[in-house]
Amino acid sequence: MSVQITPGSAGDIDDDTKRMAMVCWSNDLDRVWPTMILATTGAASGMEVDVFFTFWGLRVLQRNDKRITGTNWMQRGESLVDPGGTNRLKLGKINYGGAGTRMIKKLAKDYKVADPGELMEMAMDMGVRMYPCQMTMDLYGFKRDDFIDGLEPSMGAASFLDMAADADITFFI
Amino acid sequence: MSVQITPGSAGDIDDDTKRMAMVCWSNDLDRVWPTMILATTGAASGMEVDVFFTFWGLRVLQRNDKRITGTNWMQRGESLVDPGGTNRLKLGKINYGGAGTRMIKKLAKDYKVADPGELMEMAMDMGVRMYPCQMTMDLYGFKRDDFIDGLEPSMGAASFLDMAADADITFFI
Amino acid sequence: MSVQITPGSAGDIDDDTKRMAMVCWSNDLDRVWPTMILATTGAASGMEVDVFFTFWGLRVLQRNDKRITGTNWMQRGESLVDPGGTNRLKLGKINYGGAGTRMIKKLAKDYKVADPGELMEMAMDMGVRMYPCQMTMDLYGFKRDDFIDGLEPSMGAASFLDMAADADITFFI
Repeated sequence: MSVQITPGSAGDIDDDTKRMAMVCWSNDLDRVWPTMILATTGAASGMEVDVFFTFWGLRVLQRNDKRITGTNWMQRGESLVDPGGTNRLKLGKINYGGAGTRMIKKLAKDYKVADPGELMEMAMDMGVRMYPCQMTMDLYGFKRDDFIDGLEPSMGAASFLDMAADADITFFI
Repeated sequence: MSVQITPGSAGDIDDDTKRMAMVCWSNDLDRVWPTMILATTGAASGMEVDVFFTFWGLRVLQRNDKRITGTNWMQRGESLVDPGGTNRLKLGKINYGGAGTRMIKKLAKDYKVADPGELMEMAMDMGVRMYPCQMTMDLYGFKRDDFIDGLEPSMGAASFLDMAADADITFFI
Repeated sequence: MSVQITPGSAGDIDDDTKRMAMVCWSNDLDRVWPTMILATTGAASGMEVDVFFTFWGLRVLQRNDKRITGTNWMQRGESLVDPGGTNRLKLGKINYGGAGTRMIKKLAKDYKVADPGELMEMAMDMGVRMYPCQMTMDLYGFKRDDFIDGLEPSMGAASFLDMAADADITFFI
């Protein structure tokens, strides 16, 4: 499939460059991990990679030194029960009050698998583009300085679908 | 990628029209919501959008005034513990016996985000095509009048894959 | 989209053959089931189908007569709380200590829907290629003889993305 250069997309992509567009919808450790492994692997293979962080996934972009976000009590309450930041991600199953998550992280370390926080930094260094979802930001009351550095500007679903329509691989994770 | 007009697909799609094919597999509020946001956003951007409702996702198409479905006790029991209809969707996490779901719905309302029921009506008005999975209908003992109005005929996985193979964006949500 | 024959891919694929590449990320019964239904349906429709089993999904490939896997206590412990093999898959919701899973399996049997184990055998007979993820194998301490017969060689995410980039349909399930 030939990559179509649409207005607004990078002008230096030639016809043979493959593209991947992913939705990071979740802040479960077991979903963020494969998302970032696919992102870094794709970039290492020469792909253009775009990741759109939306719904629960927006919390992945939260700074680890930021514990509470939002401006009203509902938003602040949500941030308390659904912690953000790559250091606080929990397994979506067999979490066992954190013991399962700690064990999987220990296993990963023993086998030299980078953790999601490290993978996100690698991804940004490799040119992976990460976009916060503007609608979710509004819902959560997120401000720009609640986020880690290095992200692309926030955008809406329409902009993401534009990218996805020109991608060779599309995943909702 | 040029859209290939295959026998059976709409004849009025020209080469530049982008297509999106999604599987709506879940009746969790937090999955149905992005599915319908992507569907309406895609349609608003001029895309052809097909959504295949299967497995738990079939329950999204259930009429809100229909509480119990199925013909045998297993099917009727399943409909009791896994409520259908857009008004009864629950968050897949932090539901807290309904409190979390109510709070997110309240937040969405405050920020003018349409709820899934409204989005489904908008989607149909915008030409998004929604198909119930025939195999899941059989398993659940669903009858056509258990469903909301405006759906496409039910179909099987083979027909959906035909559509997906010609789509620019494919998501399993 | 024309299928590009890359070195290493089957040489007998002509331009019209559609391809599907799926990530099987989960060992929940309700996710494995649609994965294998899509895989067999795709193959029956003449598609080339590749399925990459990673993270929790690796356990789907575990032999049913193998209960414990891994070489250290963490890996063996994980295999105890997260049982592998198609006979032990559980629903991701309304499992109710196994009662919900048994009921859905009974319903499927009544309506002549093959179970995931049968579907996997059918899939392999139909030419669906199934690949274990090498990184997950290392993490879990899986050995080749922990797996069912008939699988392709294990591979990494880069090889899978190569396949996915040439596929018409990509799903993360």
